[in-house]
Amino acid sequence: MKFCSYCGSDAVTFSIPQGDDRPRHLCGNCGAIHYINPRVIVGVLPYLGDRVLLCKRAIEPRLGLWTLPAGFMENGETSEEGALRESWEEARANIRVNDLYTVYDIPHINQLYLIYRGELLDTDFGPGPESLEVALFGEDEIPWEEMAFPIMHRALEHYFEDRKGSGYPLHRGVIHRKL
Amino acid sequence: MKFCSYCGSDAVTFSIPQGDDRPRHLCGNCGAIHYINPRVIVGVLPYLGDRVLLCKRAIEPRLGLWTLPAGFMENGETSEEGALRESWEEARANIRVNDLYTVYDIPHINQLYLIYRGELLDTDFGPGPESLEVALFGEDEIPWEEMAFPIMHRALEHYFEDRKGSGYPLHRGVIHRKL
Repeated sequence: MKFCSYCGSDAVTFSIPQGDDRPRHLCGNCGAIHYINPRVIVGVLPYLGDRVLLCKRAIEPRLGLWTLPAGFMENGETSEEGALRESWEEARANIRVNDLYTVYDIPHINQLYLIYRGELLDTDFGPGPESLEVALFGEDEIPWEEMAFPIMHRALEHYFEDRKGSGYPLHRGVIHRKL
Repeated sequence: MKFCSYCGSDAVTFSIPQGDDRPRHLCGNCGAIHYINPRVIVGVLPYLGDRVLLCKRAIEPRLGLWTLPAGFMENGETSEEGALRESWEEARANIRVNDLYTVYDIPHINQLYLIYRGELLDTDFGPGPESLEVALFGEDEIPWEEMAFPIMHRALEHYFEDRKGSGYPLHRGVIHRKL
């Protein structure tokens, strides 16, 4: 942040406000404190029978790699609404949500991922503008080496493991920077 | 947003960028799109035996009313770390987290609440700078009519209901604007 979005001044510093314990973008002209907080990514793990739906990304980052439908949660929507919106935008998928399935923190990029588990209601899916291709994969068919994001890899591992058992409990975790 | 935080121009409009489906803060000078997304509030429902810990707020909004320790998740931390940080800041409470307990959306104020359930490790708690008072309450002692936020009311209701049963499943919900 170079300029204050309230007053337009360039007297913005990154320093610790009085009474705070960490640096913020502070305007030396009008005194505004500009807080920047983590963003939420919402998505769905859509399944039909023993297969799950994946999207091949048509946009950067990770163009050409596979992912579950997911994206930034928007103001004015619930996390579940956002997850369903992303499933429609990226995969034209009609889904009935079962439950919240994974909650993962990725602190080094200031992101919190909420992935719902949801049943595909039909096979009328197809690529939206951000996808090159959308398809169903059984466990043995998943392109494990071509997944766009570690979090999606993790969610799919949980899912295929849970399928062998009796339920789909919430999975929590943290993904740290690769060393 | 009145001024672009990248270039300082006042040519910022709230309009729909090309290829998007909702209005954003757009800079007519440098072309920047300023996204504003929901914020995450993280907190803990701290318990000791059959009592829970509440804080009486020393700050607005809802000064003088009671709440569970909670606050905005910060960049660079996990949601659980944030919840524990808030418990320390507001209640000087030492807590061992059991699990993620409630995930509530409050879409009309663009907030997502994650509340963990956690055991108090000792009784060395006390008010931090944002609290007037910190105390333990049994179910019959909770100041139900003096709770600061509906989400906290809801989390406590879930907790005392679950205590009668055999487990503490994740609770999800949406809090809508009061009509």
